[in-house]
Formats: sequence, C-alpha cells, structure tokens
Amino acid sequence: MTHQPDLAVIGGGQLARMMQPPAVGLGLRLRLLAEGPDVSAAQVIPDQVVGDHTSIDDLRTAVADAPVVTFDHEHVPPEHLRTLAAEGHACRPGPEALLYAQDKGEMRVRLSLLGIPCPLFEVLGRDSDDLDDLVDDMHDFGYPAVVKTTRGGYDGKGVWVVRGPEDLAEPFASGRELLAEELVDFRRELSVLVARRPNGDTVTYPVVESRQKDGVCFEVIAPAPDLAPDLAAEARRIATTIATELDVTGVLAVELYETTDGRILVNELAMRPHNTGHWSIDGAFTSQFENHVRAVLDLPLGPADPRQPWSVMVNVLGGSVTDLPAARDAALEADPTVHVHLYGKPVKPGRKVGHVTATGDDLDDVLGRARAAAALLTDG
Amino acid sequence: MTHQPDLAVIGGGQLARMMQPPAVGLGLRLRLLAEGPDVSAAQVIPDQVVGDHTSIDDLRTAVADAPVVTFDHEHVPPEHLRTLAAEGHACRPGPEALLYAQDKGEMRVRLSLLGIPCPLFEVLGRDSDDLDDLVDDMHDFGYPAVVKTTRGGYDGKGVWVVRGPEDLAEPFASGRELLAEELVDFRRELSVLVARRPNGDTVTYPVVESRQKDGVCFEVIAPAPDLAPDLAAEARRIATTIATELDVTGVLAVELYETTDGRILVNELAMRPHNTGHWSIDGAFTSQFENHVRAVLDLPLGPADPRQPWSVMVNVLGGSVTDLPAARDAALEADPTVHVHLYGKPVKPGRKVGHVTATGDDLDDVLGRARAAAALLTDG
Repeated sequence: MTHQPDLAVIGGGQLARMMQPPAVGLGLRLRLLAEGPDVSAAQVIPDQVVGDHTSIDDLRTAVADAPVVTFDHEHVPPEHLRTLAAEGHACRPGPEALLYAQDKGEMRVRLSLLGIPCPLFEVLGRDSDDLDDLVDDMHDFGYPAVVKTTRGGYDGKGVWVVRGPEDLAEPFASGRELLAEELVDFRRELSVLVARRPNGDTVTYPVVESRQKDGVCFEVIAPAPDLAPDLAAEARRIATTIATELDVTGVLAVELYETTDGRILVNELAMRPHNTGHWSIDGAFTSQFENHVRAVLDLPLGPADPRQPWSVMVNVLGGSVTDLPAARDAALEADPTVHVHLYGKPVKPGRKVGHVTATGDDLDDVLGRARAAAALLTDG
Repeated sequence: MTHQPDLAVIGGGQLARMMQPPAVGLGLRLRLLAEGPDVSAAQVIPDQVVGDHTSIDDLRTAVADAPVVTFDHEHVPPEHLRTLAAEGHACRPGPEALLYAQDKGEMRVRLSLLGIPCPLFEVLGRDSDDLDDLVDDMHDFGYPAVVKTTRGGYDGKGVWVVRGPEDLAEPFASGRELLAEELVDFRRELSVLVARRPNGDTVTYPVVESRQKDGVCFEVIAPAPDLAPDLAAEARRIATTIATELDVTGVLAVELYETTDGRILVNELAMRPHNTGHWSIDGAFTSQFENHVRAVLDLPLGPADPRQPWSVMVNVLGGSVTDLPAARDAALEADPTVHVHLYGKPVKPGRKVGHVTATGDDLDDVLGRARAAAALLTDG
C-alpha cells in the first residue's frame, strides 16, 4: 500500500470506521492509526498502521505523507498535535481548538468569555492535593452540584452529583483537576452538530433530542420534537458561534440542556462525529461522517437537511445477545425498513456495539420500530 | 488478517468496491480476489488476495474459509465455479444460473422456452470454421440483423449490425460462436433489477430508462419517464420470472427494449450489481449493492423503493479531465446537492471512472444537475 493517503485518521473505533463508506464513495484514501490489527475501523480501512496514539513515533509513522490528520477521539496529547502541525501536517481540528473539547474547565471559561450560556461553574482545587481545599471551595460554590474531572471523562465517567462534603471523597480520589457546575434543572438534553471547513463555511444539522441514561446516550430523535422555534434557532446560533470562534474544523457536536425554565445551556463539546449524529447516515442528505471528511479536507460541504420528517437512532449497548450478526438478521427479518449498523466489536455489557436507525412520517411509529429493532440486538 | 470473511468477492472493479460501504454498515467482512494490489476495490477492502480469476489455485486461496462467494464480473470459468461449489463454497449466483449471463445463445434459448419475449434470434455456425456457412445461415435469417458473440462481449464490444454478407467478415474473424438477432426497432432501452435470496425472496427495483451510446450506458433515469403502467408491470414480471426460473441469487439486471410498437423484449442479462442500478445508492431506500450483499448471504432484503420522485445517474467516462479529485471538488462546489462517486481508477478515454447522481422532484432539474456535474468531471 504505497499510494499517498488523502487523510490520516487517528484511532480505530467506530467513528473512524464510519468515515470509510463516504470516503469510498468520494474516491478518498484513508490511512488509519489503529490500536490493534483488528479493531473496528481496522477491519475496513486497508492502509493502516498499528500503534499508540500517545507515541509521537507511532503518530509520525501513521501520518507520513498524509497532508491532513483527523481523529476518532480527543485523546491525542496536544504537544504531539503541535509537533505534527510543525512538521507540515494539517491537524483538523487543530490543537488550539481541540483543547476546549479536551478540558472542560478551559471550555467553560472560554465559552463564558464568548457570552455563550453555560451552567454556573467553578474550576476547583487547581494545584491542591488537600481534600480540605476542595471542601472549602465547594462550600463557597454551594450544594447540590455536579463535580467533573476537567479531562478524560466520557459517557458519564468522571462525573459525580455531590449533595454535601461527604460526596467529595470519590471525585478527590480521581486525582484529577475538578470542575463544579450547578445541577441544572433540565427538561431534556439536545444536541447540535456543525461541520466547518478551514475556509469558514459551515453546515448545521437539525437540533436533536438526546436521551441519556447514566450519562450514556441511548436514543436520539431528529429533529427534537416540539422544540420552540426560537430555542432551536438559539441552539443553532450557539453551535455555529462556537465552531467559528474556536476555529473548529470538521464536525463539532454541542450537547445542550433545555432547562425547565426555557433556556438553552451548553453542556459539553466534542470535535469529531458524534453519537447524536449517527441518525444522519440514513436520515440526512449528507451524513455527519461524509461532512466531517469533506470538512477536514476543505471540500465543499453537503446539505445537512433531513431526508424524512423523522429519524430515530437507538444505540445497541452490549446486553445478553452475544451473536450480533444473527440478531441483525432477526431484526431485519422482523422489520426490513430499519437500518442496522454493527461496529465489528465484541459484545461487553453496556458497550456501544452498533446502532439502529428508523425513518418515516410518524414519530410514534418510527420510535417504535427503532426501539423494537434495537431490543432484538440487545436482549433478544 | 485472520478473521473469517463472511463473503469472498471475485474481481476488484468498481462493483466490488461499491459493495464495501454497505458491508461496513452491516458489520460484514469481505475478502477480495483482486487483479492487482491497488485496483479499485483493493483500495477499500483490507482482506485481499492478489491473483487471477481464471486460476483455480488463486480462486481457492481467495475463497479459503469464506462460506459464500460472489462476483464483480461474469468471467470466472464455469468449471472453476463447479469446483469451488464441490469444495463447499456457496457460489452466488451459481454456475447453472451464471451460464445464462455468460452465454447469450444459451440465454436466448432458455428464455424462449420460458415464454419470455425476446427478439427473433438464431445461434449461428456452431462447429463451423467456414465463412460460407455463416453467410448461408445469415441468408436464411435475413438482413439487416445484429450479430453478437455469444460469449465475452460487453459495453458494445462483440456486437455488429450487419446489413449484408459483406458485413460478416469482422464477426467471423472474432473466432467466436455467433448469435444473430433481429434488429429491433426500439423507442428506448429499459432495465429492471431484481435481488433474490436463496430462499426465493425477491425485491424488484423500479423500471429505469437506460440511455446508451455506442453500446455504453451513459445516463439512467429512475423511474423510466412516461412508461405505460402495463409495460412497467410486464417488465417487472419478466425480471422476477427470470430470477426465479433461472434460480439467480444476488442482483439480476434485465436489460430490455421498449419497441416502437409498444412491446417489451429482453436484450441482455447480468447477474451482479449493474450500471443501471447505480442511482440506487443515493436514490433508493436500499441500494443495489446492499441488497446484492444481503441476497447472496441469504439475509433479509431491504425495500427497493425510491427515496425521491426522480433520480438521474450519469456515468463519468474518461475524457479530457485528468485530475478527477479536483473536478469532483469543482462539481460539488458548483452544486452541493449532487452525489459524486469516484472509483479510484486512472482516467482512460471512455473508461467508466465514476458516476454522478442527482435526485429531486422535477425531472428536468434533476437531469440538468446530474449532467452538469458529470460534464465537469469529463471535459471540465
């Protein structure tokens, strides 16, 4: 495999995997840095290097002769990204933007300076290794609150609801910098995706409702039902403002709260294709994966319009079903109108191993079909 | 790459390439027998063997531990298919069915026995190496006529219009068995695709109009405009009858004539995804490539319904444009609503190197957009 790649992708999970179908269509060649020889994306991208994304040597091998580099996750050390950039590879998103997806404290400070509505917050106990300092800071901030590690948390890990000083031992034991946030009284969670090119062009996907359990998304409805038009417009404006002001390239996902008193607040940012955009593969004119690839390569973006009035995506989280291919076939037999996606990953309890999308004119029907198919893939 | 493949694909052209995106989605692993290390499909399917599809040893290496085998083309020798079948690999389509896509004489005889409407025909000069025998046979058949090699022709190659004995030297010089057919007075060419599982389930795509020049398809309109409902039903009935009676598995393409006197006649058969079905990637609920893969693996088939009222596919045939990626970007910049597909093949004059699909509500608009994009990719 000696042909020059158009794009190096760091990380071999399902997000990298789902970049391959649009790359095939557009005639683009991907090179993968994979954690192992048979991880999800390594099963489908021929030009691959097996290595560690925290090793600059492995990164250099993977990106050799690739003009542009993008990511399956946000865990590449920023100093390595700066090294790759200095050596002539365009990192998209770049380290300056990625910082705000990697560090929730930096994100909160920056968004607040931009006037973006966020929960009340305070970065806690920086440079402190004393639990008493944390207790003092939280006394000033007030209870109840959410305490998060500023770095490294995902899917509900590294997040605690604290109702008094007695709940601080566990966050303190993480040994990481912590962020306190007000416990937002929210009606539901929303998400907006924006794809942005280096030239500044953006396309914005419809605002979706993201339903979560224990910090893990299990279901997405596109568009968010019964969302007031002014809130939808506000959510889209927030997302495009963040993408532009932070100079994000590729897909930016902005997770939001719709509060019970009718406000929109930013919860988290991700700078890559996002679980709340998987519906777009089957439900939008151009999927988030295609627009991510187009955006990071500075190609014209495709329309983000829905193909059908409603799309529902339900995650397949590892359950009692161990033979996913057989369950896929049973789900397609039961309802040939659903789209089943499998990631080629072994089943572990709660692990995201696939997703199902249904589309149509009637939300109740679409929701029922997507849930029924996902149930067959989870617990049979 | 040691994991067992779900499906071996023989031949590394664009048809095999376009099977990979749906395989990625469904969590299926393909193994490829490729003509070379960087042919179209070899760029996108990691598990690959480089070899010759006429070598039983290379075929055996490629299909090792693959339960099912399918094809990018119809050129694998039937005796090799029988060998692979005897060794436990399900060849789909099987050699008994594939014969009728490989040999136009056998096809005409069989379809006539099934009562399927075909042009008048006669298999010529079998076992003869004397031009005079051919001249005598054609005298009896009558002029003008079409003379074709029964095997090995494609895209207008191996087909001659003969108006008198003086036109027979060239077909005779092919050294191949020849078939004479009446010169059909047709209004237009149509095509119907059927995907069929081993269990007998079928789905049938809408009848499309296929526009050809010098025997090469350049444009497909889905569905065929202004087609009388009874002719559409007849075309679909013919296609499903052929798929069933010939025990075809996978996609069967039936190319048809709509005659000036309002009849449907079968022109040719192909037993694989077909150029006249490329519109389905962007225009149908389930693409022909996804349904081919599902069908040969005996998985439930997906709906073949159109997503939009009109889809137009225009082939990109190699022209004066040599930098296809730059032309792709220009085409997407000019019209972000078109879908550009590139096959990763070097440009040669007239070679199929990609295609463009546009979809929408207004046929003139859709046709204009698809043609404009394809023009940018052909001659700039």
